[in-house]
Amino acid sequence: MDKIVSLARRRGFIFPSSEIYGGLNSCWDYGPLGVELKRNVKEAWWRYMVRDRDDVVGLDASIIMHPRVWEASGHVAGFSDPMVDCKKCKMRWRPTDLAEPKCPACGGELTESRQFNLMFKTFMGPVEEAASIVYLRPETAQGIFVNFENVLNTTRKKLPFGIAQIGKSFRNEITTGNFIFRSREFEQMELEYFVKPGADDACLEEWTQYRLNWYKNLGMNPENLRLRAHRSDELAHYAKGCYDVEYNFPMGWSELEGIANRRDFDLTQHAKYSGKSLEYFDEETKEHFVPYVIEPSAGVERSTLAFLIDAYAEEPDKDEIRTVLHLHPALAPYKIAVLPLSKKEILSDYARKIYADLRKCWMVAYDDSQSIGRRYRRQDEIGTPYCVTVDFQSLEDGMVTVRDRDSMAQIRVKVSELSYILAAKLSGEPFNS
Amino acid sequence: MDKIVSLARRRGFIFPSSEIYGGLNSCWDYGPLGVELKRNVKEAWWRYMVRDRDDVVGLDASIIMHPRVWEASGHVAGFSDPMVDCKKCKMRWRPTDLAEPKCPACGGELTESRQFNLMFKTFMGPVEEAASIVYLRPETAQGIFVNFENVLNTTRKKLPFGIAQIGKSFRNEITTGNFIFRSREFEQMELEYFVKPGADDACLEEWTQYRLNWYKNLGMNPENLRLRAHRSDELAHYAKGCYDVEYNFPMGWSELEGIANRRDFDLTQHAKYSGKSLEYFDEETKEHFVPYVIEPSAGVERSTLAFLIDAYAEEPDKDEIRTVLHLHPALAPYKIAVLPLSKKEILSDYARKIYADLRKCWMVAYDDSQSIGRRYRRQDEIGTPYCVTVDFQSLEDGMVTVRDRDSMAQIRVKVSELSYILAAKLSGEPFNS
Repeated sequence: MDKIVSLARRRGFIFPSSEIYGGLNSCWDYGPLGVELKRNVKEAWWRYMVRDRDDVVGLDASIIMHPRVWEASGHVAGFSDPMVDCKKCKMRWRPTDLAEPKCPACGGELTESRQFNLMFKTFMGPVEEAASIVYLRPETAQGIFVNFENVLNTTRKKLPFGIAQIGKSFRNEITTGNFIFRSREFEQMELEYFVKPGADDACLEEWTQYRLNWYKNLGMNPENLRLRAHRSDELAHYAKGCYDVEYNFPMGWSELEGIANRRDFDLTQHAKYSGKSLEYFDEETKEHFVPYVIEPSAGVERSTLAFLIDAYAEEPDKDEIRTVLHLHPALAPYKIAVLPLSKKEILSDYARKIYADLRKCWMVAYDDSQSIGRRYRRQDEIGTPYCVTVDFQSLEDGMVTVRDRDSMAQIRVKVSELSYILAAKLSGEPFNS
Repeated sequence: MDKIVSLARRRGFIFPSSEIYGGLNSCWDYGPLGVELKRNVKEAWWRYMVRDRDDVVGLDASIIMHPRVWEASGHVAGFSDPMVDCKKCKMRWRPTDLAEPKCPACGGELTESRQFNLMFKTFMGPVEEAASIVYLRPETAQGIFVNFENVLNTTRKKLPFGIAQIGKSFRNEITTGNFIFRSREFEQMELEYFVKPGADDACLEEWTQYRLNWYKNLGMNPENLRLRAHRSDELAHYAKGCYDVEYNFPMGWSELEGIANRRDFDLTQHAKYSGKSLEYFDEETKEHFVPYVIEPSAGVERSTLAFLIDAYAEEPDKDEIRTVLHLHPALAPYKIAVLPLSKKEILSDYARKIYADLRKCWMVAYDDSQSIGRRYRRQDEIGTPYCVTVDFQSLEDGMVTVRDRDSMAQIRVKVSELSYILAAKLSGEPFNS
């Protein structure tokens, strides 16, 4: 993990937030490469979950929602951890973190354990009073449930169908850590898939496989992935069944994504609290019922971290060791790097033309610093799948060298065919950004 | 505006947030079409501002930042509006909104005017005390300034260069309204472009034109756009010059984007508050100096609203009036709709194959409900540039009808050439989603 943190910091993937002020605990900023990687993770999810499917539409609900939403969802009453306070220094602790019943900071006496709500609270409108308390959403899911009827009415979708959303959520976690694995501000990629009760068990199995395949399709080593079914005693009270997709992180197998059968809990609660019927009318059977929901819920940062870890390798190259990120081309921040062998104007003019041309289709880097060997190393380290090297011979024969990041193999190709060849290499999705 | 709000609601572009709970003042949720439109606006900005430029890199900083950031930026002390309270009913008012010095709600006596800070405040970590107060960022810009050095060190960029960011910001505005024009939660697209002092004036002019062209390139009517230079008495205290790009909204000419010369104000403040030097070293002249900053700052929702308004038309079509959104293809939620003339299986099998094929490259709709005329109307109303109609003749001659949204002209093309023809029509960016 230290190597990933160091590479991420050094190459501009991930910085501690507000670093010049000493950082802010568990908040992270994504630099020039990190923002592209994260964009690509989200884009890959949206394509696979929304664009490629007939039965899923998207949504983007606001982070601040009506406070009644969180009463209905159970978050106001139940989304909490037990905490104790030190009567002397006022520090707060989680009872499970304490070895003995006194304050680890000052040795003072502790209060009885109380429930501490994990939602961030703020005030909307000018008056700071109870009436204007609002919360930062602790999950994107509820934005989908409260829009169930709106989406149904405007799209006329029939069951089974799903609503997908990507967006920030906030949880005032007591314990954060493991780099970007658990932070208080994070981004979720959630789907709520509505099915007829009775079809839910099979649907949970299907989505679990479908989601597992997403990670595998994006190049994750299947040996680092496993499914874990929740035991009945660890299921959330509303859930009928749940799988965790776990990844073999450096700190051990940990949850990458949860896929839960939430039954009709949420829609039923919102119907009760809002007074609106959130039933679905089945035109074929003429039945009214509240759909069941299967929820695959993934984290952007966790996925990003797992993709980084999985891609990281140190490999022998002649007498040296090279560091390389074997990122899937769809995820790599840059797809291609154009490297002129020298800074001479005649060569850089030619290389810049190739660069400008490729950039119409892809995110492309241009690097004319240092030796070619060091430039290859740098592109390897940030996961660029292909380097295009332009040399003086290119000016004469109109050919350039394409170097493959993974095999380090080099081929010589015509500039006129470069786009087509790279398009084919980049998984047949030439104009993917 | 009422027509836009109604269309947006009816077709699933934009819903009031938490609508089943009566909505939440000035918060909006983006439905299946709205989320795609907004994604396209952001993607168009990112391509134009980051991917297409050599001198700009991206960033994604966290929403919750170190509280010292907002002391340095001046937001803690100065980001406020004057307010008065009613001593009787406790309602709060903006003095400028009052016709007479008593409470408009109950007629009660009002307090003296006080400054009310517009930042949303919350508490991070388990203890609700002064030490853990944090703010939701009121602008994305500061996330860029505090990462200036990190980006400089990891990318080795030379002046002039820029850092771009898209993300949510929050302002506890007293007065909101005009649909999605002004809301408390909103999304910004900001660039901070760093230049050598002295080059700043010319740079401001360049960026102003470059930004104006973005709106025009995406099909906005130039007559609905204008530039307005800020008078010296309305400039922010740190700004040397500023232009507003204004759009001719239904409520009058209003700010779409601000392009400001922020001088070295922000970097200097952060250097002072953090104790770090944020100077740039110019290798050519061997000078150390704090760069000046040109900031084009656009709003996602405002741009989206302006694009919707600009695209909206009611046009005669034979004896009827059709409603059509003339959205630029890059912005349209669906690029293409596949419409089989009948629901018969033999036809829908064929149409579904075409649909599956086109969907590899584009966001495509499939509609087999109602009469073909009504389906054209629906696609016009949501801005789909091209309809592909599949009829029984298609089964015999392998040809389909392509209908143009704007001209309503129809041409007959071979299915085998459909992708190429549509790619050419959709602005030569065939694999754009």
